[in-house]
Amino acid sequence: ETLVLKSTDFVGISFWLISMALVASTAFFFLERDRVSPKWKTSLTVSGLVTLIAAVHYFYMRDVWVSTGASPTVFRYIDWLITVPLLMIEFYLILQAIAKVPVGVFWRLMIGTLVMLVGGYLGEAGYMAVWPAFIIGMIGWAYILWEIFAGEASKINAQQAPANVQSAFNLMRWIVTIGWAIYPIGYFFGYLTGASPEASSNALNIIYNLADVLNKIAFGVIIWSVAVSESEKK
Amino acid sequence: ETLVLKSTDFVGISFWLISMALVASTAFFFLERDRVSPKWKTSLTVSGLVTLIAAVHYFYMRDVWVSTGASPTVFRYIDWLITVPLLMIEFYLILQAIAKVPVGVFWRLMIGTLVMLVGGYLGEAGYMAVWPAFIIGMIGWAYILWEIFAGEASKINAQQAPANVQSAFNLMRWIVTIGWAIYPIGYFFGYLTGASPEASSNALNIIYNLADVLNKIAFGVIIWSVAVSESEKK
Ligand SMILES: CC1=C(/C=C/C(C)=C/C=C/C(C)=C/C=O)C(C)(C)CCC1
Ligand SMILES: CC1=C(/C=C/C(C)=C/C=C/C(C)=C/C=O)C(C)(C)CCC1
Repeated sequence: ETLVLKSTDFVGISFWLISMALVASTAFFFLERDRVSPKWKTSLTVSGLVTLIAAVHYFYMRDVWVSTGASPTVFRYIDWLITVPLLMIEFYLILQAIAKVPVGVFWRLMIGTLVMLVGGYLGEAGYMAVWPAFIIGMIGWAYILWEIFAGEASKINAQQAPANVQSAFNLMRWIVTIGWAIYPIGYFFGYLTGASPEASSNALNIIYNLADVLNKIAFGVIIWSVAVSESEKK
Repeated sequence: ETLVLKSTDFVGISFWLISMALVASTAFFFLERDRVSPKWKTSLTVSGLVTLIAAVHYFYMRDVWVSTGASPTVFRYIDWLITVPLLMIEFYLILQAIAKVPVGVFWRLMIGTLVMLVGGYLGEAGYMAVWPAFIIGMIGWAYILWEIFAGEASKINAQQAPANVQSAFNLMRWIVTIGWAIYPIGYFFGYLTGASPEASSNALNIIYNLADVLNKIAFGVIIWSVAVSESEKK
């Protein structure tokens, strides 16, 4: 039996759209890698890995959604559990292109990530009431924000970066603030409004999907554009 | 009938996570290969082969686990039978980047590997009682350890290596000791504790999976990082 994507299933259409955009982004980052100078190559590799992993997961998520209408929660969290740490590595690589960064910064960002995702999963998979789980997740995210705005990572950037890497760092900061904020909004509309199960699950998935476009694809494109312009200077 | 990964099946989730991480690692090692100097390229190729082979096996193992709940023993040993010798080749390549190494060292490491894996398979596949098979496997591993800590391989390293290749060699030594030790621990919890079949098989698979992350992915990343820093020197 083939899976049929209905022309009225807009959430399903968004899964489909994004899965294809992720495939294209992966090819883009991997191919463009040879245009940039060596120290930027790993950043593009990592951007491509994020979209590659997400592409595979979106194919599975799409099928779960189209064939059962259920939220593909497990696959989403497996994806996040790999891709968010990769984004943290990306961050760290950009900082390191500028200065010696203590590994402690990296591990603290990782711990924040884990708390955020474990909290969310406990709530979404039904291991815990949805509100307290949400709060745990928010604490993890708040900790990451604190680290990049007020902690050690922020100081390194302020002191040592050349102007245009500093602006890349700023952009990334805003991605982690504004871009990532879309996820808890999705969680909120998915579990905390008291709307019907169908409306909730539509909202949840469409918002998470939108957030992924921004945070996986747009984030990578930003890095690509900084990498290209930095490489052309020399 | 589609395979459904349940949100409570943590062993299944770990299979899934690792299969994806292996795909990403393979892309990573193959792409990053062009950043390092020629004599390091083969090491990155080999790291990528290890994760590629493992990725394919993990897709099959994941399906066996998710659809039947049984331990995918045959696939695991087929994987190990290719990847462990590849890791031995990796070792040998690193030694050879430093000095002329007698091929005898290589063959002795291979014989140790074979004894270790054949022992384990005889026990896990039910050809032999689990305890004696375990002991045969342990003898193979002990022989490998002896070779790299006290045998000819260890002497070559001590005499001729520059400081930072020596430290890479040391790291690898610890991987073969600490990293590989996780496998017999998995075997122990899988067959030798007298726990229920379900608990045993959960423990076996989660421990083996964890061990593979460390020994296939982390090991490759270590080699990558040495290769990059060595290549940038010149
Ligand atoms: C704060 C918060 C959340 C945040 C999730 C985030 C921020 C996910 C980011 C994913 C990314 C960036 C993927 C990129 O590839 C949850 C778990 C939804 C719910 C609990 C509260
Ligand atoms: C000692 C011992 C074992 C060791 C297995 C090992 C060490 C496997 C290593 C696999 C690797 C490193 C794969 C990497 O790709 C067995 C067979 C479990 C059981 C018998 C005793």
